[in-house]
Amino acid sequence: MSDSIVAVPLDKAYRLLNHGPTVLVSARYNGVDNVMAAAWCCALDFSPPKLTLVLDKIAKTRELIEKSERFVIQIPTVALAEMTYQLGSESLYQYADKLQRAGVELLAMEGEDLPFVSGCSAWLSCRLIPEPHNQQTHDLFIAEVTAAWADSRVFKQGHWQFDQADPALRSLHYVAGGHFYAIGHEVIVNDNAASID
Amino acid sequence: MSDSIVAVPLDKAYRLLNHGPTVLVSARYNGVDNVMAAAWCCALDFSPPKLTLVLDKIAKTRELIEKSERFVIQIPTVALAEMTYQLGSESLYQYADKLQRAGVELLAMEGEDLPFVSGCSAWLSCRLIPEPHNQQTHDLFIAEVTAAWADSRVFKQGHWQFDQADPALRSLHYVAGGHFYAIGHEVIVNDNAASID
Repeated sequence: MSDSIVAVPLDKAYRLLNHGPTVLVSARYNGVDNVMAAAWCCALDFSPPKLTLVLDKIAKTRELIEKSERFVIQIPTVALAEMTYQLGSESLYQYADKLQRAGVELLAMEGEDLPFVSGCSAWLSCRLIPEPHNQQTHDLFIAEVTAAWADSRVFKQGHWQFDQADPALRSLHYVAGGHFYAIGHEVIVNDNAASID
Repeated sequence: MSDSIVAVPLDKAYRLLNHGPTVLVSARYNGVDNVMAAAWCCALDFSPPKLTLVLDKIAKTRELIEKSERFVIQIPTVALAEMTYQLGSESLYQYADKLQRAGVELLAMEGEDLPFVSGCSAWLSCRLIPEPHNQQTHDLFIAEVTAAWADSRVFKQGHWQFDQADPALRSLHYVAGGHFYAIGHEVIVNDNAASID
């Protein structure tokens, strides 16, 4: 585990997702690890923190999550743009060595039996809240976030620090066809609220 | 209706939300219009396009949507940051003149009996798909997008053009406490896919 990775208090975990980044979803079941890219992941509640995630029925990661009921949401950086695109374009069903092909390096977090992707800016460990209707009808999965971490070079004291950090650590926001946007500059509306918050 | 507003084909509507912007939610019922800000709105399906939206029980807009089963998701710009923050901080229950206080100007779209907020970069007209369990348990609303429009100065030919447009037209991505980020620069991974797509 990198020296710059620090725990994020659970009541601040929603802030890791609030700005709408593209994420990587990883899961482990019965000795199989997989990672996929997803643009449709969204905060759902503050405390306990919950999130929604859309998983197509063709995704191997979905099968792993349905069986293990655990997964990790992590936030890839501009430096991982090619890897993120590749993880969203290929399936483990098609390539048994998908993770090696994309250059994924995994890291371990203490007490967590899940695959965490190295080089991301934040990680949320999630426990599925099974909802058969949502999963079958809408491909929609709901989960509780049980632990969170961030790279303190870009997220500290409960806030993203994109303008102060290396631009390679900015989050990615996918549109379509290999086109992402990086997150940009801060826009502060209410200095007073910011200092209180 | 501004000359620069053009219809977006429904199969491209998901792209308006894919990069995770903060949105404004507007609704109308029985002569009452309201607009609120929301960070938790996410694409759910491509065709027909659907989306999810989280609405707290304290929001007047939620009541209007539950009664009318219609609403608009629109994407505010950097130029509307203060208005967006104010629309997320005050309730119509508290201020009957909330929209005037925030400086909201409404525009009409042909054939739509809904309040559209002027100055946004895109608009999605939505029809609620009632799901009582999701609404009561998770404050989660699911809707089908029935029509979409964008400001062609910043979205055209199915793609955002943030790097070519006035920076004041960039989308907002909320974190907390009055802190937003503007969307930043394009990161293109796969030129070939981009040209096909």
